[in-house]
Amino acid sequence: MGKADIGLVGLGVMGANLALNIAEKGFKVAVFNRTTSRTHAFVEEAGPLAENIVPCETLEALAEAIALPRPIILMVQAGEAVDQQIAALKPLLARDDIIIDAGNANFRDTRRRMAALAEAGPQFVGMGVSGGEEGARHGPSIMVGGEESSYRRIKPILEAIAARHEGEACQAWLGPDGAGHFVKTIHNGIEYADMQMIAEIYGILRDGHGLSAGEIAPIFAEWNRGRLNSYLIEITAAVLAADDPATGQPMVDVILDRAGQKGTGRWSAIEAQTLGIPATAIEAAVAARSLSAMKEEREAAEKRFGAPAPAAGPVSAEALAILEQALFAGKIVAYAQGFSVMAAASREFGWNLPLGTVARIWRAGCIIRSQFLGEMAAAFDEAREIENLLATPAFAPLIEAAHPHLRRVVARSAEAGLPVPALSAALAHFDTFRRARGTANLIQAQRDFFGAHGFERVDSEGSHHGNWQES
Amino acid sequence: MGKADIGLVGLGVMGANLALNIAEKGFKVAVFNRTTSRTHAFVEEAGPLAENIVPCETLEALAEAIALPRPIILMVQAGEAVDQQIAALKPLLARDDIIIDAGNANFRDTRRRMAALAEAGPQFVGMGVSGGEEGARHGPSIMVGGEESSYRRIKPILEAIAARHEGEACQAWLGPDGAGHFVKTIHNGIEYADMQMIAEIYGILRDGHGLSAGEIAPIFAEWNRGRLNSYLIEITAAVLAADDPATGQPMVDVILDRAGQKGTGRWSAIEAQTLGIPATAIEAAVAARSLSAMKEEREAAEKRFGAPAPAAGPVSAEALAILEQALFAGKIVAYAQGFSVMAAASREFGWNLPLGTVARIWRAGCIIRSQFLGEMAAAFDEAREIENLLATPAFAPLIEAAHPHLRRVVARSAEAGLPVPALSAALAHFDTFRRARGTANLIQAQRDFFGAHGFERVDSEGSHHGNWQES
Repeated sequence: MGKADIGLVGLGVMGANLALNIAEKGFKVAVFNRTTSRTHAFVEEAGPLAENIVPCETLEALAEAIALPRPIILMVQAGEAVDQQIAALKPLLARDDIIIDAGNANFRDTRRRMAALAEAGPQFVGMGVSGGEEGARHGPSIMVGGEESSYRRIKPILEAIAARHEGEACQAWLGPDGAGHFVKTIHNGIEYADMQMIAEIYGILRDGHGLSAGEIAPIFAEWNRGRLNSYLIEITAAVLAADDPATGQPMVDVILDRAGQKGTGRWSAIEAQTLGIPATAIEAAVAARSLSAMKEEREAAEKRFGAPAPAAGPVSAEALAILEQALFAGKIVAYAQGFSVMAAASREFGWNLPLGTVARIWRAGCIIRSQFLGEMAAAFDEAREIENLLATPAFAPLIEAAHPHLRRVVARSAEAGLPVPALSAALAHFDTFRRARGTANLIQAQRDFFGAHGFERVDSEGSHHGNWQES
Repeated sequence: MGKADIGLVGLGVMGANLALNIAEKGFKVAVFNRTTSRTHAFVEEAGPLAENIVPCETLEALAEAIALPRPIILMVQAGEAVDQQIAALKPLLARDDIIIDAGNANFRDTRRRMAALAEAGPQFVGMGVSGGEEGARHGPSIMVGGEESSYRRIKPILEAIAARHEGEACQAWLGPDGAGHFVKTIHNGIEYADMQMIAEIYGILRDGHGLSAGEIAPIFAEWNRGRLNSYLIEITAAVLAADDPATGQPMVDVILDRAGQKGTGRWSAIEAQTLGIPATAIEAAVAARSLSAMKEEREAAEKRFGAPAPAAGPVSAEALAILEQALFAGKIVAYAQGFSVMAAASREFGWNLPLGTVARIWRAGCIIRSQFLGEMAAAFDEAREIENLLATPAFAPLIEAAHPHLRRVVARSAEAGLPVPALSAALAHFDTFRRARGTANLIQAQRDFFGAHGFERVDSEGSHHGNWQES
């Protein structure tokens, strides 16, 4: 048995599936896990794929098992574990070996690690991998950041294991240093907003129209055949249709309404704020998850303030069409915000991020995959300079047609007391953005009044002050 | 002439006014400015107060002029200038002298500076000062962070120069290290939200009802006599009533609708995200300022997507009452979010922040001063454990009465196309918060479906997984 083509450290759910994916594509992969028994169990479970897997009990054995120059994927918990693995591997590796961090790292950590390894090596790649367990096993979307030369050496493997959209592999080198992990972070931020908006529409159907999970499932299934076609809508229909074997109840009805979060949504919001780019739909989604965790306080608050108005009764076909369009409009704004954050980061860090490519490698494999991303890739390719999706010739007509429905849904939900934080953030963004003469003139007047901050005038250049005390 | 009681470095607008305030209260203040001519001009302009001012041409002279142990206020631009002044002063000072940074520092910088000086001294105090030019001159609100012993030594001066509310000085020691600058940051974040909500109501009156600035001014003046009574409402009436001498137009109509920001709003949002606390009203306000800066894009967007519906015509007394209540409801939520962020920071950093005291020292001097803050101080004093204003016995009835008006205003604005980002964020927060059974159960189902993240059940303990593939 010859040397392995690549190494992989960390055989958790994601790492194990990624290793099987690599082995299945005909590459030999050397694997290591901190708990050795897990390594052996993994090889046993791998069946015929085991012939392409080299189990290693030590990092020394792992380094020994891989052909030079060695690429080694880390799929361990983001944070300190990554630093520990780098420290442990470093003395075993040569300058032109490549450590590839495939976890959900904060791109600032990736920048730091890359800078620390820049002089003595090994090379370091920050690689975002999306698609969950299934994606890792059968084809994820892969977002690579680092030296382009490092990428070129691992490209054949990435092309083989990535998801495919119409034959094209959903993987790309996106830029130097933290570009890959940054894009993955924003992918997740957009995912938060997308999921939250779906949950809001579900809430309107459940609480506003009194529909059961079983009645809501076919609505999403139907939408999945239209313009909302996407993995998230598909699985929404699936989870709503599933029953709990233990109780016979719809599965979603026995699940506690307390959502977890692992940090990437929050990081998206923090980076957007740091860059000064509005990402209010993502922020609303993060806030909704935080509020969901306050279960006891919410129960007390409903006792105190009452529940929303009782269900309005059966939902008409027209009402459903409005909800579908509203969700579509909200989604466009959320994606527009996410892409604007990436555009700003690209300027800030000099990455020259190819936004069309980002949309293209998200068309398959990742959690937010959708037909919509194909249209988006085309829109960005066509107009590289245009950083705002709402201003692209392809998307402007879509939001123009859909926003009246979004405003109707936000208005009715506001009246009924149904929470729509992300949808209303999206509408407010659109309404603020499309206003030639806003209301910040008043804010500037106030700031000049109390802080002598100065303001610009509509009719002349420069900074001016008001003669407030005279009036 | 004896030694000075205190030193002050930086004679910009805020520093100069603070020095005059100190001198007027009978303390002798030694002043230094990088540009010496400014120092002399300042003393000349000080009139009779000059007798309490000691102009210094060098930092050595400044250190020499102050009685031991020396307290020295820095009022220079936040950021690098502060580090430079500390470095320049350090060799001239003894271990028990006190450098007091009174600028708008990021509290993380304050923590860093304090840690760096901890061993060798001098002592370091991070002091938030709010109230703009007028406040600095005649009484600001002062938020002190650092060692309590350092505070005690400067307390007599702070008590003398601070704003007074019913005889009580609006200054306090709030906690160790960055507590003072953190509270000042959140003060500014709340200020952003408050100003944005006022601007949204102004927009509804201007664009939704077609009122002129001169017609809107008395509405705010009237509201200032009611429950909205506050400095910001007062100055809103004042700036709306002011005319531009050059054109005879209302002043606000010649001011460009492009708002500036100096970072504290953004910092509030970043810290809220870092702590995992929803601050969506503040985030909406920051985003609105960012969008306001995109003037050309907004102009193009209005051409593309059209303006809001034309003005609905004259505003009824009833409609005005609804707007007043809506603004009040939005304000309660924004303040509740801000105070929750402070409560979380207090836990995170072990500050033991006295929230009632924070509200109390904001009753006068600062930009968000209002009668409302008196009620808030009482609410927090009464229930120190309750970190959520919406859940306090004093505020629950207020938001209960006002939220129906907020939802009406958000609904109507959504329909009309008038942007209400902060007001709708506040409503969405309230509606999400007061919902016992939310929609995060769907999000948990999705997360378990694609990522095997697990979920809690409503009927049993522990983490569970769905049997999704079977269904």
